[in-house]
Amino acid sequence: MDPIRLIEIKEEILSDNNQLAEELREKLRKSGTLLLNLMSSPGSGKTSLILRTAEGLKNYLHLGVIEADIDSTVDAEKVAAQGVPAVQLRTGGFCHLDSSMVAKGLTALNTDKLDVIIVENVGNLVCPAEFDTGAHKNIMILSVPEGDDKPLKYPLMFSVCDVLLVNKTDYLSMSDFNREDLRRRVLALNPQIKIIEISCKTGEGITEWLDWLKNALADFKAKR
Amino acid sequence: MDPIRLIEIKEEILSDNNQLAEELREKLRKSGTLLLNLMSSPGSGKTSLILRTAEGLKNYLHLGVIEADIDSTVDAEKVAAQGVPAVQLRTGGFCHLDSSMVAKGLTALNTDKLDVIIVENVGNLVCPAEFDTGAHKNIMILSVPEGDDKPLKYPLMFSVCDVLLVNKTDYLSMSDFNREDLRRRVLALNPQIKIIEISCKTGEGITEWLDWLKNALADFKAKR
Repeated sequence: MDPIRLIEIKEEILSDNNQLAEELREKLRKSGTLLLNLMSSPGSGKTSLILRTAEGLKNYLHLGVIEADIDSTVDAEKVAAQGVPAVQLRTGGFCHLDSSMVAKGLTALNTDKLDVIIVENVGNLVCPAEFDTGAHKNIMILSVPEGDDKPLKYPLMFSVCDVLLVNKTDYLSMSDFNREDLRRRVLALNPQIKIIEISCKTGEGITEWLDWLKNALADFKAKR
Repeated sequence: MDPIRLIEIKEEILSDNNQLAEELREKLRKSGTLLLNLMSSPGSGKTSLILRTAEGLKNYLHLGVIEADIDSTVDAEKVAAQGVPAVQLRTGGFCHLDSSMVAKGLTALNTDKLDVIIVENVGNLVCPAEFDTGAHKNIMILSVPEGDDKPLKYPLMFSVCDVLLVNKTDYLSMSDFNREDLRRRVLALNPQIKIIEISCKTGEGITEWLDWLKNALADFKAKR
């Protein structure tokens, strides 16, 4: 297991973020590496999902992870402990990732050997939705304890994502979370989004998520 | 019940935010109105806490509420339905409140008759911690499902707050949340912070929170 690489990010947001994002996307398309941008509130289960994904796909594809955190390396340590190549971006005060930060993470990973790279964005439902990271697909997690009203309050996040993972379904029995209200609110914002209910704790729904990811990778490689 | 007032905020962040924050704080000190800035992740229970506070103190003091939301009025509607004067700040894309936004909310409320005003900040553990809103006290909520590692990942938020409310203690029995680990991590960042465990659902700990608020108000009025 490699030691965690730590990259300090201090530069101002690049004005040419969108252009760099397109360049990253195209470069990774050519090399056959699917880049996923994973976003959620703090504590919704991003790292747990990555660990479940690494475990479920370890005999199927080569996964790499770029972790973003304001001031710690705990997530990258957990991921690297599973034998998955991981880079930690320490964002200082930044509340989101942009494409220049992701580019630094990609440089630190050896992307040639990787089929899929998951970028764990900063835990935040607001700012990360506004910045193109260069990912091919945006994935978000909403956890049951956060409530079914979040699409009303953070509409951009739900609008820019390809997949919504509704995590912590093991809390449904003791919550007033209404799955149909959530589904209706999300689909009103984004009719194309794929919604999958999961529990990283019990494993419920993880197979459906892994199947989505395998299919997305097959489509991606077929279109090269 | 007054209709919800809606204020659109589009201006850029004021460079003189800190100076305006000091002016707001001093003006409210003279008029005897205690301003609280309430921060947390999305879905941690800010609005539920405000509703519990309004109910618990309705015969004791005059409360007003300033709600911030990116794109909805649902929170202010809930608060106003309890008979509490409420203003909704619609922040557009902004991920935090600053003192100029709070000043607009204060102008819209009739602050002369109010003992306490609670500002519900945008749901976000990152950016709101960086901007002085003019509040006399900063309060944050961390809910049990978010996990006990959040002080490691969002240290500034825990450092700038006077009170940490650990909400959703009704989830403790089905969670691996470690209260002692949390307490140790929080106190290492901020030895003066007051930590109160609550459940807005069951009412656990709410009396302790209300007592803290009553004492803070008495201290504040005594120092005028």
